[in-house]
Amino acid sequence: MADAIRALAIDAVEQAKSGHPGMPMGMADVATVLFTRFLKYDAADPRWPDRDRFVLSAGHGSMLLYALLHLTGQAGMGIEDLKKFRQLHSPAAGHPEFGEHPGIETTTGPLGQGIATAVGMALAERMLAARFGKSLVDHRTWVIASDGDLMEGISHEAASLAGHLQLDRLCVLYDDNNISIDGDTSISLSDDALKRFQAYGWATRRVDGHDHEQVAAAMAWAMRSRKPTLIACRTIIGFAAPTKAGTAASHGSPLGAQEAAAAKAAMGWNHGPFEVPEGLKERWEAAGRRGAGTRRSWLKRLANHPMQAEFDRAMAGRLPEAWHEPLAALRARQAEDKPKIATRIASQRALEALVPAVPEMVGGSADLTGSNNTNVKGIPAVSPGNYAGRYVHYGVREHGMAAAMNGMALHGGIIPYSGTFLVFADYLRPSLRLAALMRQRVIHVLTHDSIGLGEDGPTHQPVETLASLRVIPNLCVFRPADALETAECWELAVKRADGPSVLALTRQNLPALRTDSGENRSSRGGYVLAEASGERRATLIATGSEVSLAMAARATLEAEGIPTAVVSLPCWELFALQDELYRSQVLGSALRVGIEAALPFGWDRWLGPEGIFIGMQGFGASAPAEELFRHFGITAEATVAAVKKRLG
Amino acid sequence: MADAIRALAIDAVEQAKSGHPGMPMGMADVATVLFTRFLKYDAADPRWPDRDRFVLSAGHGSMLLYALLHLTGQAGMGIEDLKKFRQLHSPAAGHPEFGEHPGIETTTGPLGQGIATAVGMALAERMLAARFGKSLVDHRTWVIASDGDLMEGISHEAASLAGHLQLDRLCVLYDDNNISIDGDTSISLSDDALKRFQAYGWATRRVDGHDHEQVAAAMAWAMRSRKPTLIACRTIIGFAAPTKAGTAASHGSPLGAQEAAAAKAAMGWNHGPFEVPEGLKERWEAAGRRGAGTRRSWLKRLANHPMQAEFDRAMAGRLPEAWHEPLAALRARQAEDKPKIATRIASQRALEALVPAVPEMVGGSADLTGSNNTNVKGIPAVSPGNYAGRYVHYGVREHGMAAAMNGMALHGGIIPYSGTFLVFADYLRPSLRLAALMRQRVIHVLTHDSIGLGEDGPTHQPVETLASLRVIPNLCVFRPADALETAECWELAVKRADGPSVLALTRQNLPALRTDSGENRSSRGGYVLAEASGERRATLIATGSEVSLAMAARATLEAEGIPTAVVSLPCWELFALQDELYRSQVLGSALRVGIEAALPFGWDRWLGPEGIFIGMQGFGASAPAEELFRHFGITAEATVAAVKKRLG
Repeated sequence: MADAIRALAIDAVEQAKSGHPGMPMGMADVATVLFTRFLKYDAADPRWPDRDRFVLSAGHGSMLLYALLHLTGQAGMGIEDLKKFRQLHSPAAGHPEFGEHPGIETTTGPLGQGIATAVGMALAERMLAARFGKSLVDHRTWVIASDGDLMEGISHEAASLAGHLQLDRLCVLYDDNNISIDGDTSISLSDDALKRFQAYGWATRRVDGHDHEQVAAAMAWAMRSRKPTLIACRTIIGFAAPTKAGTAASHGSPLGAQEAAAAKAAMGWNHGPFEVPEGLKERWEAAGRRGAGTRRSWLKRLANHPMQAEFDRAMAGRLPEAWHEPLAALRARQAEDKPKIATRIASQRALEALVPAVPEMVGGSADLTGSNNTNVKGIPAVSPGNYAGRYVHYGVREHGMAAAMNGMALHGGIIPYSGTFLVFADYLRPSLRLAALMRQRVIHVLTHDSIGLGEDGPTHQPVETLASLRVIPNLCVFRPADALETAECWELAVKRADGPSVLALTRQNLPALRTDSGENRSSRGGYVLAEASGERRATLIATGSEVSLAMAARATLEAEGIPTAVVSLPCWELFALQDELYRSQVLGSALRVGIEAALPFGWDRWLGPEGIFIGMQGFGASAPAEELFRHFGITAEATVAAVKKRLG
Repeated sequence: MADAIRALAIDAVEQAKSGHPGMPMGMADVATVLFTRFLKYDAADPRWPDRDRFVLSAGHGSMLLYALLHLTGQAGMGIEDLKKFRQLHSPAAGHPEFGEHPGIETTTGPLGQGIATAVGMALAERMLAARFGKSLVDHRTWVIASDGDLMEGISHEAASLAGHLQLDRLCVLYDDNNISIDGDTSISLSDDALKRFQAYGWATRRVDGHDHEQVAAAMAWAMRSRKPTLIACRTIIGFAAPTKAGTAASHGSPLGAQEAAAAKAAMGWNHGPFEVPEGLKERWEAAGRRGAGTRRSWLKRLANHPMQAEFDRAMAGRLPEAWHEPLAALRARQAEDKPKIATRIASQRALEALVPAVPEMVGGSADLTGSNNTNVKGIPAVSPGNYAGRYVHYGVREHGMAAAMNGMALHGGIIPYSGTFLVFADYLRPSLRLAALMRQRVIHVLTHDSIGLGEDGPTHQPVETLASLRVIPNLCVFRPADALETAECWELAVKRADGPSVLALTRQNLPALRTDSGENRSSRGGYVLAEASGERRATLIATGSEVSLAMAARATLEAEGIPTAVVSLPCWELFALQDELYRSQVLGSALRVGIEAALPFGWDRWLGPEGIFIGMQGFGASAPAEELFRHFGITAEATVAAVKKRLG
């Protein structure tokens, strides 16, 4: 049965004239044991909620996964699809892409992401089991990971977190083949991987990855373990290829016609390209049906479960009926109270309204809970062995946190939000990119969003970070101007089911700017916060903390007889989606002045060639916040002076 | 003596009303032992090349470093400077900032960066010792690292690399205090750090960090070790503070007047704020002079060393006299030969000209040597115990690689360049940001720079990456259009002593576009590659692989009677530095069309509101490259059609 995987991998890579045959050939035995004897799934319904999750972290070996999906008889991965491996519109893309086929649990390829995403899945399983009970949620997460996955830093953060939280439903099958692209791993790697994972609190074992019984015994052991498990499977990359096996030559290129033929001969595989003999295919399809009975029993349990509707709702990603009512009440209250608070504090108030109303929301922070204000009173954190909480102390592990959040969202039943400083978005960026690519609802609370954080200095002051996030497709970057806008942006982020969101929030207090709470004005991305008293001579366009600065500048300009409007632009992406007419009405044809305590990159779009930009020109500095705003010329006075100079 | 550090840290944080007193108070004993008995330095010349490097990875404890610089009598860190801790223009910034004081070896604060940078320093030391001999290069790298540093993923990559390369001159003093911002580390961390580092090939020990003799014995042991060493120093954060010691309350906020007074009383410290009794200060200054004799002997050895001039040149960062001649010859040859090659191959040819001529250039790749084309024939790699090479197999460790490159550049004597795929710039971004902030000459060769990489699909195809890099201050992003421009950009990157550079290079072949090689036309960032035959009706502005596409479009447009110019814009940052007149002449007043196989973000600056952009609108896809360019409408035909439609 494993040879069928190998043959398909060889053929598909040959046909595509590109791809990675070595890994599927090396791990075919391990995968066969997993899919025919251990993995809980039913090929008839690959999205069945209580299935085991299988993550191919070493995504370059995508043909391993596609061959398994095909062989087990899953719809949507026919032999014609395999023949179009790595071609436009084929579900068999170069790397596994979430959304291309229901059997692909997550997008992988960037090394380390799969294993870290799987940690989030395994945590989600434990948390949902705590919420809905073992009769509805009782499954495992299996990962195939490579040397490259384990070399990446994110594997440390993820494995350390999994060990700490004792995620015993997680099993990593480590393809220990001693080969990476540059050659033998010994040129760059001397880790004792087993000892390393033991240091994280994992149970470990080593097996011959081509010995089915050894592999099966280790998997059975893993299922009994009370710790997460790492099974190092000693394999030969490109197994069966007579000259390229065990070398980097089989890693990332087709074997070539001659070597391919010889490999098939060595396996005793005498079928044509893309041919799997009927009997073998039947055995594979029988394996694909192994879980059918288990799934049917589960469906019955679900049908009779008192929490059925709630379970279905959460897993489908539908929000509770009245989820936004407490938030609407908060907005109304804030329109009256006009709290002068930092938007990070406003965010906490929004969470106090949201989290009790949306039970699938799970918070956290990368060791900055008190600074990010991501906690909600009375909501406990998960801890080793106890998963009934709804908050995760991720530790100083931004990257692992973001990947785990992706895994929770992909698992379903959880809307993860979490926090760090905005500048440290750089640390989690590769996982955020995948969230955007997979269109997952994860929400990053990124506080301390400018030089307004003050004394911590340029290492902690984002100046380029907003732009660097705005350029990521499918991501919404919200930078609210006051408490009320913060509540609006939270509402939009939670409602947004088809992509990640970032909330960029201040450390420093901001005055309340709005007294209306009926319409969610942030939903259009930008709007006229204060119209000019007469025909506009200037439009001040600002985000976040600089909107109140713009309002102060407007007051002076109006007093000096210069009719000035202020536009708040909390979300560029939503504003860009509005029609041209709306946008031109908001931005106006008068002198446009952009104000943001960040670099001008990207602002030309809103300001045009004649616009003025008030903001940063380089990195920040260490000093109290107010002094920095003066030092860098980001003040109402500077804005007024620039407008008057231009208008003559 | 340690109490003097504690007292100064307490006073400075109280005065600033912000900062982190706990860590300096906890690690004062360890630092005192290091600075008074082990660290090789001379306060009279903090930049002496053969000094030991000291890296405060836990940069939030900056007052520990500033107190040491002050107490040992280094110029430029007077008591007045400490009183201005965290104020504008003070060298005592919130976190240690490279360049603010000669005794600050690197900027730290973003956790994990210091320890990873130190790995690069330790490797640089070994490589320079191999080149210049032990009589000129024979020093150590000491690091103070926190729980947070060790939780970060980059610590895994760095420590794994250091263990592999047996960097035995590296000693990490781990401030094992069990406290992070969110509270006791047990809420998020269960690692056995010693076992973990042993798994990397390090030697480890645990000591009581308040017992000077235990600490000294461990440091002496570290100096004898043949492996890198981790000394876990069990300390009490905020040591001596009666109620806040051992708690997160002492981590990141002033102690408060009452607790500060009580801490001083507990230490028996009865001096005023910022007062250090004369006798104690003298003892500290004597410690600061400990290395004076060693430095004088070294200076004598240097003066008599046959390689003195070369050593001075390399350490000063001055390029060899005739360094650019082989490159100029290459450019002249390419102007004649017109090679049709990928720019990554052109980069390799440039390196073949540069690397032999610039002996301080040290290459590498994050396990993509064959894809990044960063190797040069005949240049050996370093390996465990053998540091005579000039190439580093960094493994799949992009982040650790970039930080190590920073460390090499900071150490001096090395110009590091290295490679990965452009999309994986995300993985190394936090270190690249620090290189930009510190203005270090590190060069990142980032290949496979668009959908032109083809089948690997959207996870590997950068669409937002160019923009995300262009927004980083002090960074130059080069995207050359052909082999000749690639050589020009390499010349500029190597010459650029005050900041990092990125070369974004293609996987796919490109035609040669230039036949002139006299002037380095890329040095102005952008230039008219082909002027229109008559008065311009359109200007096609492109970078990298899309310049040849623009040339093809121009041919068609000219043939149809539409005079069209083509502008190559290989480096936006250098182009932005040109005067307004030059820029407006290059860009012209005709219809502007930007062409880049990436997102439009940032292009408005060059195109204005009336411009057209031909490029990507979202993530890529998996298919052969040519098919993708057609699929996404990035072709000469699409460009011609867009121009004609607009011109009517």
